[in-house]
This record gives sequence, structure tokens and C-alpha cells, in this order.
Amino acid sequence: MADYKAPIRDMLFVLNELFEAEKFWASTPHTQDVTSDLAAAILEEGAKLNEQVFFPLNRSGDEEGCRVEGTDVITPKGFKQAFKQLAEGGWTGLSGNPQWGGQGMPKMLTVLFEEMLFSSNTAFALYPILGFGACMALDKHATDELKRIYLQRIYAGDWAGTMCLTEPHCGTDLGMIRSKAQPQIDGSYKISGTKIFITGGEHDLTENLIHLVLAKLPDAPAGSAGISLFLVPKFLVDAQGNLGERNPAFVGSIEHKMGIKGSATCVMNFDGAQGWLVGEINRGLAAMFTMMNYERLTIGLQGLGSSEMAYQHAVAYAKERIQGRSAEGPVNSNKEADPIIVHADVRRMLLTIKANVEAGRAFSMYVAQQLDITKFSEDQAAVKRAESLVSLLTPVAKAYFSDRGLECCVLGQQIFGGHGYIREWGAEQLVRDVRIAQIYEGTNGIQALDLIGRKVVKSGGALLQPFVEDIHACLAQVESVAELTDFAQGLTSALNWLQQATEIILVNAKQRPNFSNAVAVDYLELFGLTAFACMWAKIAYVAQKNLNTGEKDYYQTKLQVGQFFLQKLLPRGAALLKSIEAGDEAVMALAEVCF
Amino acid sequence: MADYKAPIRDMLFVLNELFEAEKFWASTPHTQDVTSDLAAAILEEGAKLNEQVFFPLNRSGDEEGCRVEGTDVITPKGFKQAFKQLAEGGWTGLSGNPQWGGQGMPKMLTVLFEEMLFSSNTAFALYPILGFGACMALDKHATDELKRIYLQRIYAGDWAGTMCLTEPHCGTDLGMIRSKAQPQIDGSYKISGTKIFITGGEHDLTENLIHLVLAKLPDAPAGSAGISLFLVPKFLVDAQGNLGERNPAFVGSIEHKMGIKGSATCVMNFDGAQGWLVGEINRGLAAMFTMMNYERLTIGLQGLGSSEMAYQHAVAYAKERIQGRSAEGPVNSNKEADPIIVHADVRRMLLTIKANVEAGRAFSMYVAQQLDITKFSEDQAAVKRAESLVSLLTPVAKAYFSDRGLECCVLGQQIFGGHGYIREWGAEQLVRDVRIAQIYEGTNGIQALDLIGRKVVKSGGALLQPFVEDIHACLAQVESVAELTDFAQGLTSALNWLQQATEIILVNAKQRPNFSNAVAVDYLELFGLTAFACMWAKIAYVAQKNLNTGEKDYYQTKLQVGQFFLQKLLPRGAALLKSIEAGDEAVMALAEVCF
Repeated sequence: MADYKAPIRDMLFVLNELFEAEKFWASTPHTQDVTSDLAAAILEEGAKLNEQVFFPLNRSGDEEGCRVEGTDVITPKGFKQAFKQLAEGGWTGLSGNPQWGGQGMPKMLTVLFEEMLFSSNTAFALYPILGFGACMALDKHATDELKRIYLQRIYAGDWAGTMCLTEPHCGTDLGMIRSKAQPQIDGSYKISGTKIFITGGEHDLTENLIHLVLAKLPDAPAGSAGISLFLVPKFLVDAQGNLGERNPAFVGSIEHKMGIKGSATCVMNFDGAQGWLVGEINRGLAAMFTMMNYERLTIGLQGLGSSEMAYQHAVAYAKERIQGRSAEGPVNSNKEADPIIVHADVRRMLLTIKANVEAGRAFSMYVAQQLDITKFSEDQAAVKRAESLVSLLTPVAKAYFSDRGLECCVLGQQIFGGHGYIREWGAEQLVRDVRIAQIYEGTNGIQALDLIGRKVVKSGGALLQPFVEDIHACLAQVESVAELTDFAQGLTSALNWLQQATEIILVNAKQRPNFSNAVAVDYLELFGLTAFACMWAKIAYVAQKNLNTGEKDYYQTKLQVGQFFLQKLLPRGAALLKSIEAGDEAVMALAEVCF
Repeated sequence: MADYKAPIRDMLFVLNELFEAEKFWASTPHTQDVTSDLAAAILEEGAKLNEQVFFPLNRSGDEEGCRVEGTDVITPKGFKQAFKQLAEGGWTGLSGNPQWGGQGMPKMLTVLFEEMLFSSNTAFALYPILGFGACMALDKHATDELKRIYLQRIYAGDWAGTMCLTEPHCGTDLGMIRSKAQPQIDGSYKISGTKIFITGGEHDLTENLIHLVLAKLPDAPAGSAGISLFLVPKFLVDAQGNLGERNPAFVGSIEHKMGIKGSATCVMNFDGAQGWLVGEINRGLAAMFTMMNYERLTIGLQGLGSSEMAYQHAVAYAKERIQGRSAEGPVNSNKEADPIIVHADVRRMLLTIKANVEAGRAFSMYVAQQLDITKFSEDQAAVKRAESLVSLLTPVAKAYFSDRGLECCVLGQQIFGGHGYIREWGAEQLVRDVRIAQIYEGTNGIQALDLIGRKVVKSGGALLQPFVEDIHACLAQVESVAELTDFAQGLTSALNWLQQATEIILVNAKQRPNFSNAVAVDYLELFGLTAFACMWAKIAYVAQKNLNTGEKDYYQTKLQVGQFFLQKLLPRGAALLKSIEAGDEAVMALAEVCF
């Protein structure tokens, strides 16, 4: 497999040139010390770790997998040392609250580091990533006492965090959970129940594990309004943070999976384990949701990071493998054949990946910026606007990125021909690993339903306004440059399709109960395509402006890949609109017995 | 995993109602003994074997895989006994030439049996399938002496066949092969070289293996005009068919693959192994191509069979798994939740699979009928016409079916949520197994290039004529029925798109060397979509005619699934046309260094 090389130049392009991060950071007190130079230095350090430490463990981790030994889970060789290096470098606390020892770095920076993690080694990435999420929920909802004891140790990478939501009989429909929380005299709870699909539920990377567990109090209301959130450590901890007794929260088994084999996916049995309430009683789902937007963007980044790796891997092969001749005549006449990158169809596949990766990276930064505004800005109107955008765009980022992730990894694999199917070559692992991103953290069908139902229909379309404004601003930019007519036209078409689709949905959703869900996935895809058209217009604007600088090839390439997006990928939007127009009739016509 | 149940009713619908097989069989001397009753009886027997013997070995075969022991390859537990049952039932000679003990059954029947094999156990299926191909090449090109010795034993399932084409440095571009054939005084040859990706290159299912090997004579012309085909047995065989000495044709290793793990994919080392010429010197590729059309359709059937299994599996889960409530209000109010088949998005996924499977099965029958005409018909004009159709449609069947196969298996897996990612549930195996169908037997990119280059452009579009005629005949049928206006309109649109695309390509291909290959994959997809629109029109016509028979629900379902195809899947054609119109410019613009 080609070595991973973090795409620092492209990352800085997005950060500095596309989103002018430094200017943005300077504008809020919590981020004003973050400069472009600091960001670049952090990314360079992160690149080294991913390229030299995590990436070399990717193939071996897949082959070795995890295993259960008694009550322990053993991770693949090298993972423990790698996690230690991650912790020592301060990366486990990168986005953490400085009050408890975190580094307080903005999401605009951490998205880029997370992308690297998913490029270099997805299975490994999940161990720290889950910790980020757990910390966020604790930081927002736990008591100061809990934060003091737990937060800084997770930030330090001494301990790791997990999320325990799913049970054997319910995943999407969490209202049905059966795990119980029995109140104790000392204010703590005894938690009992079985949780499945728990990423990193047990492992040997850290000395303690902090589980965040959803459970119900004995008198809780039925459904999702009766769910509370609890902190349940693997080893009990005293007020000074010293480890005590083992809590009865044990791994039952680990799943045998299609991919991410180096990540331990555990069945967890809580058998009267001691836990502490996080947030309010019966408000557990809400507490979970505060970090959901971050987590979902992060899982989107899995699709993006995997696609970047698929691209690097496939380009290297396409330049090296010789087979057949260029349609224009031999370019390599001293050899038996030409490198396959001369073939138009191979280029089509590479460009499809590249066009998606570059727009995806820009869009992830756009969403990250909105998350940072909600967290750091002191301008309440700006915060409110950003909250709307985050709420609208998070399901799009999660689902559209991970769908493109599978598509891109499959294309990357295809370029290898037969070798793409052989494990040692690595292309097929990317496909197996990225596939989970469409499923976990809420399936992509659920993301689409969230977008169309809770966001678009529920707001009567109002939630779209800030996004449409931003598109218009972008449109105004490209319309002002004569060379960018194609980008303006492409974005105008996409916006029209999206607005027509939205209107159709708003009209029909009220009368036809199944309409929204019947067109949800198509609508999310159209939404993602429109967002990418906007990102390409943005990229083209900056590239055109800088075309006559010293890096002409670099900016010219952006414009050319953008053209590929407009001509080859964007047309799909019209078909999606057609399918949305067709509504739910054909979807619902069949009686259940006729399936 | 839900048990496999062969879709006999749907198979008979296609065979008898859609293609009126009995009438067709009665019209040629070689098939006139094949009746509908006989066909149904054969399918029922085949169903039992697939349901009760091969399917139960599918999951275990994947987990166990194959292993090398010395010079042997051990297949998963149960495979040997299963192959014995296959042979004893006469299935290994089902399509074989009766002159050498085969059963002479038409392809119209064997496609259905092959579909079952790929539904029940793809890895197992490949062992007999490779034998069918080898026999066809031998039957067409070998001397009677070779046929007498080898053919009947392969038909009987005592011996198995392989195809040895690919070498480490060349797959697509076979002109570069380095395997050598040294002529011997007795008329035989000594074959030396290394072949890779050899399916069933070594295994323990049969007492002998017959390799068909491409190699070059010492004085052969360069490139593909210098390739000859040789028969190389694992054990040498005397004139009476008794096994003799071991030939030095040994397995070097087996590949570790993404899927089809029960199928031994071998590196084969030929070290002066004795072989016999099949067909003429330097005409080896041509000899291989005579069976290529059959093999490629068969690999298409892998996509179809896997999709059928994915459908059955996902439907069973969707009816059983409860999660959430119907948008129309609870349908299952005595339980905590409704079965997920009530959700429109789950139905969308199921219907997408069903719409592709049913059109695919019909299209495979259409191509099979053309293959049978080329083989059995005594009407020379009919044979010529059928040859054109086969030549045109084979790459479409191979690539479009296998592309849809991946799509459908991924959708099936998605319906399982988290369980779809867990190996024990079986949904992810289908995805891993079906993925190879897009790669082997000529990658789908190569199929698209074959369609557009060798078939469409080379004939100046003339090769499309019989297909367009058949579409018009189908169109005339649906246009004659008032209830089928939607089907007529859908097919008309599809045909228009295809004809526009063809014209654009014919005009541009001459001036722009990269044009064809830049749009080839889009064109093949548009072609497949048009073919499926035609099949749905055909199905709708028969269904509408029979709507008032006793099986109203059955035919009503066909019409409803057809509507789903028209409304939800067909619109993609317009986008493909757009992308084809955009041509090769954006595909070729980037300099190689800018990738």
C-alpha cells in the first residue's frame, strides 16, 4: 500500500485561503491565540504521527484484530504504544476544555487532525475519537466534581471514554432501552443491563475506561422521555483520582465484523455497576445530543479521510502499473505498455474521488466553523444563526460524506483490478472499514429523516434560510468573475433543484405521512450535491484569484477538478429532483405480504 | 441469515410467460425434447440442492476459507461432499455436449440454475462454473481425441477445469504474457510460467484438474497475436483416461481476499508441465473468446443471484425487526414498535433491489435466448442476428448486473443497521463476495470499453439495430394497452437517451481519441438502464394481460414494482446522458503530475 502523506498543502488551502481561519480566530477571546503558524505547526506534528506511527499499524491491525482474554480485550500489536504517543503529544486533549487541562483548540483545526486519523488508521482512530465525544458530554452536563476527577484524565489520555447506547433489541429506537438505574443512598446509581456495539467498550490502551451509559430509573416515563445518562467507570475512582475496586461492567464478547477489526466492538454487561448521573434525570438523550453534532461530523470525516487515502493509494498505483496503451498513442514507447493513468476511465475514477474529497474537506471546514461560532462567539445573533446551520448541515455531512466515502473507496479499489480484491494490497480494507460510517452514529437513512423531518419540514423550511444566504453570497462572488460562469451556472442550477425539492416536500409532507421518508435519502443526496457545488464555487473563486501567483499549477488543478465536478457529477441532481417529485406512491403501494 | 428459497415462481414466470421457452425449444431439433414440465422439474431439483446443501455451507465456508497443505489445497468443510452431490445429480454436465455425455440443456435453463448457485453460495459456485467454461472451450476447439479423454470426465464431475490467463504483470493486457510453450517431439508442449488469480487452480474436490493455459510459442509474434491455448492436466492421463504421473503444475500460494473465501484463488507455477494445444497456434485468445460471452453472462448472474439473496435476507429481517412507528400510526399497537418494513425508506431500499432483480432476471433470459439461437438455430439469418445481439449485450449483462449487484447487496446490508456489519448475520458477506464480480472476467471498465469501442463505434452503430428493433417491438406491445402508458413513455425516454448518447459518441469518437473511454462507463450504465426499462415494459405487458386471473396479487405486484422502477430508478438516465454530452475534456485536462 502506498504510504499515507497528510495533504497539508490542501488542508492549509482550505483553512487559510478558503475560510481565512486566522481572521476568524482573532475575533473571539477563546481562540485569539490560535494563529495560522500555530495551526500549521500542529498539523505538521499531527502529520508525522499519522504517517509514521498510526498508518504503519493499519494493515497489521486489520489482520490481527482484537481478542478477548478473560475479562480483558487485547488490541493489535503496536496500538498501545501508538496510543501512548498520541497521549504524550497532547492529542487526546486537543479540543478539551482548558479549565480541566484540555488545549481548547477549535473544531476548524481538529477536523483536519481527525481527517488524518481516518486516513491513516480508522480502527485505531476510534479509540481517541470516542474519548472526545465522552468528554464533550461530561464537560457540558456533569458536575464540577465529576469533571475534576474524570475530565483531565481522559484529556491526558490516561483513561478512555465510551458511549453505551444500543441494546440488542433497539438501536435507532432508543426509547425502548431496558437498562436500569437503581438510585443508591449515597446519590450514586447501580446500573444493570446489556449494551451492544460498544466501540472500545473494553481494551488495553488505558488504565481505566469511563463509560457513558443510557439507562432508565425505576419510575421513568415510557419512551425516550425516560432515559437518563450515567458515568460508569471500569475501575472506581476516589476523590483524588486513585483507582479502586473493579466495577461490574464487563465485556461479554467482541463482534466479528466486516472491517475496523482493530477496533474492539463490545457487548457490555453492566451488572449493578456503580454510576453517577450526568445532567438531569430523564434528560439523558438531550445530554447525548449536545455532542451528537460534533460526533456526526466526525463520522462524516471517516468517509472523507478514507477517500483521501483511497485516492493517494490509487494514484500511486495508476502511475506505476503499466497496461495497454494511451488512446492517443504510446507515451511510454520504451516499455511494453503505458501507465494506466493515461486511460480516460481510470482518470474518471480518480477525478471522482478527488472532486469529492476536495469539496468534502471544504464543507467539513464550513460546518466546523459554524460549530466554533456556537461555542466561542460572543455575538448572540451569530451563535443562533450558526446553531441553525449546524443543526441543518450535520446530518448532511455525516451521511453524504460517508456515502461518498464508500463510493470513493470502491472506485479506488477498482483501479487496482484484481489486486484491489487482495487483502495485502490494502484497497479492499478501506472499503470494509469505511462501510461502517454509513451505519453507526445513526444510519444514513436516519440522518436523512432527521434532515427532512426534524429540520426542514418542522421549521417550515425556515432553517434553510442561513444556508441559502451563504450560497447566495458565494454565488455573488463567482458571478463577479467572468471566467467562473460555469461555476455560477452550476451552483444556480443546484440551488434551484434544492429549492424546488424543498417546496415539493413542504407541500406534501402535511397531507401524506410517508412522503418525507420516501424521498429523504434522495433529498439528502441532492442537499449534499448542492453543498458541494457551493464549495466548488468557493474554491474556484479563490483559485482564480491566485492563478497568477507562483503556484499556477496548483490553482489551475483546482479549477480543472471543479470543472469535472460540474460536468460529470452535478448532473445527477436533476435525476434526484425527478425522483423526489415522484413522491411516496410507488414506495408505499406494495402490501407487506407482496414483498 | 434467512434461509435461501429459490424463487421458482418468478423463474417460471420469466421462462414460460415472458419468453415462452417451450415454444422456442420446440422450434429447434437439439432442444425439442425440453418441455416446460421438464424445465420445472429440473429447477425444483436444483432448488433442493441449493437450498439444502450449498446454502448451509455458505457462512461456514467464508469463515473457514481454503488452506494450502504442501502441494494440496483444502477447501472448507462440506464442500467436497457437496460437489459430489452436484456431480451425482448430473449438474456438472447440465449444459454439456451430449456427444460426450453432457445433457445438452439450453442456456435459457442453465442461467436459472446458475443464478441459484450464486444466491446460495458464490464461493462454492465458482468450482463448477469454471468447469462449464473450460468444457465449452474444449468442445469448440479441442481435437476429438482430447474431447473423448477429458470432456466426459469433466461433465461427470470427476475432474474440474480452470482458466489460466492472468500473470503478475498483466491481466487486462494479455498481449504481454510471458508463459512459454516449448514444442515436444510427440506433438505435445512443455508449459512454463507463473499464473495468478487462478480460481480453483488447486483443490480437493475432484481427482484431477484440467488447466486451460495461455502461453506463447518460442517464435510467436509479439502481443496478443502470439498467444496459444493449451490443455494442461494436473495428473497426466492415458488414452483410457487412467491417471498417471503428476504434471509439474503446482499451486504456489493462495490469495487472501476480501471475499469468496471458500473459493481457492491460486498462484500457479507451471514448470515444464506437459500440455496439448487447443485450437490453432497463435489463436489462443480467439479460442478463449468463444466461451467468453457465456462466462461473462454467468458472472453477471453472480450480481443477480447475490442481489436475490440480499433481498430475501433483508425482507425477512424487515418484517421481523421492530423499531419505531409507522408514519401513519402504529400498525402493531400491542407491541413496543412496528416492523421496520412500515418505513418508507426501508421499502425504498427493498424495492430498489426487487426492481433490479426482476428486470435482471428477464434480461439474463433474453441474452440466454440469443446464446441458444446462436448455438441451436438452423436459420442462418436468425443465428447472425443473435450473434450481433450477444456480442452487444454481453458486456452490458456482465457489468450492469455486477454493478447493480454491489448496490443491491449494500442496500440489503443497510437494512440490517448495525447487524449488517456483523459477520454472523451474513449480509456483509454478500457485499464482500459480490464485489469481485465487478473486477474479474474483465473489469467493468473494460466491459464498458468493449461495448463502446469494439461494438458500438467499430460497427458505426449498426450493431445496435437488432436491439433497437426488439425495443420497438416491445414498445408496440405496451403502447397497445391503455393501462401501460407510463411504461411506454418510460421506455421511449430511455431509448431516446440511448440513441442520443450513441450519436454523440459516434460523432466524437473519430476526432477525439479519449472520448469513448471517458464516457464508456456512463454509456454502459445508460444502456443497462434502457435494457431494464424494456424488460419492465415486457413484464408489465404480461402482468397486465394476466391481471384478472387467479393470481391477481402476483401480477399486481409486478406492475407496482415496475412503477417504482419508472419513477425512482429510470430518471438517472437523463443525468447519464448529460455526463456523456460533457465528453472527455474535463477527464483529460489534468496533467499527470497534478494528480
